[in-house]
Amino acid sequence: MSTATLTPTYDDLAGTWTRLHRLSHLQSIAGWDQAANMPPKGNEARAAALAEMAALLHRMRTDAKLPDQLSRAEQEPLTDLQRANVREMRRQWRASNALPESLVQRQQMATSRCEHAWRTQRPANDWKGFVENFRDVLAAGREEAELLSQLSGVRKYDAMMDRFEPGMTCAHVDRVFGDVRQWLPGVIQQVTARQAAEPVVAAVGPFPLAAQRVLCEQVTRLLGFDFEAGRLDVSTHPFCGGVPEDVRMTTRFREDDFLGSLMGTVHETGHGRYEQNLPRDWLGQPVSDARSMALHESQSLSFEMQLGSHAGFVQQLAPLVSKAFGHQPAFEPANLHRLMTRVKPGFIRVDADEVTYPAHIILRYEIERPLIEGEIEPEDIPALWDAKMQELLGLDTRGNFTNGPLQDVHWPEALFGYFPCYSLGAMYAAQWFAAMRRAMPDLDARIGQGDLAPVFNWLRDNIWTQASRWTTDELAVRASGETLNPAHFKAHLLARYLG
Amino acid sequence: MSTATLTPTYDDLAGTWTRLHRLSHLQSIAGWDQAANMPPKGNEARAAALAEMAALLHRMRTDAKLPDQLSRAEQEPLTDLQRANVREMRRQWRASNALPESLVQRQQMATSRCEHAWRTQRPANDWKGFVENFRDVLAAGREEAELLSQLSGVRKYDAMMDRFEPGMTCAHVDRVFGDVRQWLPGVIQQVTARQAAEPVVAAVGPFPLAAQRVLCEQVTRLLGFDFEAGRLDVSTHPFCGGVPEDVRMTTRFREDDFLGSLMGTVHETGHGRYEQNLPRDWLGQPVSDARSMALHESQSLSFEMQLGSHAGFVQQLAPLVSKAFGHQPAFEPANLHRLMTRVKPGFIRVDADEVTYPAHIILRYEIERPLIEGEIEPEDIPALWDAKMQELLGLDTRGNFTNGPLQDVHWPEALFGYFPCYSLGAMYAAQWFAAMRRAMPDLDARIGQGDLAPVFNWLRDNIWTQASRWTTDELAVRASGETLNPAHFKAHLLARYLG
Repeated sequence: MSTATLTPTYDDLAGTWTRLHRLSHLQSIAGWDQAANMPPKGNEARAAALAEMAALLHRMRTDAKLPDQLSRAEQEPLTDLQRANVREMRRQWRASNALPESLVQRQQMATSRCEHAWRTQRPANDWKGFVENFRDVLAAGREEAELLSQLSGVRKYDAMMDRFEPGMTCAHVDRVFGDVRQWLPGVIQQVTARQAAEPVVAAVGPFPLAAQRVLCEQVTRLLGFDFEAGRLDVSTHPFCGGVPEDVRMTTRFREDDFLGSLMGTVHETGHGRYEQNLPRDWLGQPVSDARSMALHESQSLSFEMQLGSHAGFVQQLAPLVSKAFGHQPAFEPANLHRLMTRVKPGFIRVDADEVTYPAHIILRYEIERPLIEGEIEPEDIPALWDAKMQELLGLDTRGNFTNGPLQDVHWPEALFGYFPCYSLGAMYAAQWFAAMRRAMPDLDARIGQGDLAPVFNWLRDNIWTQASRWTTDELAVRASGETLNPAHFKAHLLARYLG
Repeated sequence: MSTATLTPTYDDLAGTWTRLHRLSHLQSIAGWDQAANMPPKGNEARAAALAEMAALLHRMRTDAKLPDQLSRAEQEPLTDLQRANVREMRRQWRASNALPESLVQRQQMATSRCEHAWRTQRPANDWKGFVENFRDVLAAGREEAELLSQLSGVRKYDAMMDRFEPGMTCAHVDRVFGDVRQWLPGVIQQVTARQAAEPVVAAVGPFPLAAQRVLCEQVTRLLGFDFEAGRLDVSTHPFCGGVPEDVRMTTRFREDDFLGSLMGTVHETGHGRYEQNLPRDWLGQPVSDARSMALHESQSLSFEMQLGSHAGFVQQLAPLVSKAFGHQPAFEPANLHRLMTRVKPGFIRVDADEVTYPAHIILRYEIERPLIEGEIEPEDIPALWDAKMQELLGLDTRGNFTNGPLQDVHWPEALFGYFPCYSLGAMYAAQWFAAMRRAMPDLDARIGQGDLAPVFNWLRDNIWTQASRWTTDELAVRASGETLNPAHFKAHLLARYLG
């Protein structure tokens, strides 16, 4: 591979990452299968297989010859893209190298076990059983945080967030969430008061699962997802997995509600299109990975909230809903839009409207940060959860673990530091649409006419195809003229709900 | 792992094979997914991922320290099972070591591409397009045969069969098939003449796919398959894959025929139960692998032919069929049994009855053996196929590639040497049931009463749990008192069809 090239070391490194990409492919598909297909007795063997693979990939990412190769590649005559690629390689190498293989393997075993048991513990409201497995997950997570923190010199939770949102810090999140904490309760009150006076017709179920499935697929197609390069299946907790070449989205259905799975699917489709539109020529190289999880969530929330809940888009959606379930008054576009933008404090994060959603994130952030930093223990979670749900949303969750701290897959899967990305993503999404409107003043009218191309083209050109070429801040500036500016999110909520 | 043990080297080897088992797990699941789920645009990336894994596993199986470890382990104080395990390790090592990694990777790429294209080429009757990809598959297959042959000193096709049926030779197959060639045409004639005089009522379709799916699952359960440790899905070519801990069977449905998918599912269930009942304590070690492919097929054919088409079993089956599709005269047990044992020369191997089936195998054997040995080229296949179909079954297949040489997945997947295992398996299956009847003279009556436990217990004790502890010949003698004896198969056909 490296004969007669001016960048022999770079080429070697690129080869290594191609191999990593190929082996991770099997890991991703097996992970998706574990959630979407696997029968229960298969779990021990699957956990062992995934742990073996995690250890193997870890060995490859911590190969002793990498630091020298990275240094030598940096001296080679690289193009800008190659240079960005080496920068991202070094970032990945640094993160991996902080962790010993035994920890990686232990973490993989602990999360596989915990996540699998959680699937039955959640419906059984079995907090005690959950904590038993979760203790191992947390112990491994704290070790990881300690090691990463020592390496980078930032505080432990910062180091955990950095895995998902490079460069993000508690200081920054505290500032942003602190501001939200100021105005959010008031806005929720104003919106719910205003909506109490608005007539809204409820949709009457049941909504047959087969019809819901067809509807979800139609809307996913309308949103440009390529079913020749991906699938939509069912799992306990919806997610978007697989590989860029074969994106595996999941949803879940309930007979008494179709909006949950529909909007969940729209959300995952945002993730899916990001993955499907990463630069094909560079797939496998770190520079072609999605930039960060906040940016990933900015895509899912651009789809679900900015576009999917847009009054103009709902005009396109309404006839499809009527076709799926038979027409009823609730499906009139204006009423459907009201149903979709109903604000109501509730227990479940993934079912939350976009106004109360940040409250769920702030709650989790305020629990998992001290949890990782060793200031609280799993036993302390229920009381904190109850207090914060009371404080932020005025809800009593005592004893309700199923719809309380057992509701998310993130903790069983050790995704500590991920939650803030959702709200940062919502803020970026508002920022992207503000930028789109500046560039295309007729954007809202075009969405109302069913012309979604301007949205997709803007996202493709500014986000999807840019992948990890720039840092998050650079990408945000190139796309929208500024770094993260939460004012757009507040303005969006005020315009949509109190305009 | 090896501290304070008397078998340190054996323990190291066992650890290596556990790691191989875990990584192969991901390969198996991704392979199943490729056939059952994967969207078309995912194939290039999947092929690359599987090739990478094949190369990795190959490197592990050819690790330079293995020969010395195997020799040292053989000197350690091993139990009988451990000794059998080392014997099988050595067998695997010898086979893997004959092949350079580049060949393994090339073969994986070629078969992934060829198999994927074959899925559309088969319905399009596109023989020419198929040959273009198949040339690479065959080239790699011939190289493999050459290398394996050099290593073991047997002829090339013997070496290829040895991968599936250790110790089997062309000389032995020629003797067995030569005998079948003598009596089979006469038996087919006698049976078809006799059946022409028997009244049989055809089943009237369509048979809704959802009802077929439910029926297949019911029968699979009746046959003892554990759905907590496996699945039944749909793919172009039915197979049984996955891992012993999570068995993935597939079938395919046609609205105008339910018996094809039903009996195909019964067939795969035989494979599935073998895998699900391999010794759990030894999973991952070669001694716990299924003995050979002829023995594997002896299980699928024990289920499909010996048990599934048994008049007594059909009495259990008939009410389920009536329940699935509504009652009709064709579903009376005696008539259903007649439908299921109808003998009619046809184009398709997997749809063939058990009397004409050996003709399909003899044909393939007589083509792929000279193909591998370089005596003929892919271009020669159609004429040979046509001539042999004419000679063996009196059918004209000219120009019909879809239902001719394009019908099987084996050649696109480079499974040269596999086909004989089907007929050897049918012979072993007859031999097992003859042994069962000697041990349990009331066997047929008990099957008629719906008591299938005697069959399952015998297979479990004599075949499934014995895994690879013995050579095929040893296992056959322990189970039935003799090595392969094709007379039982002939006796079975004469009793069932001309008795």
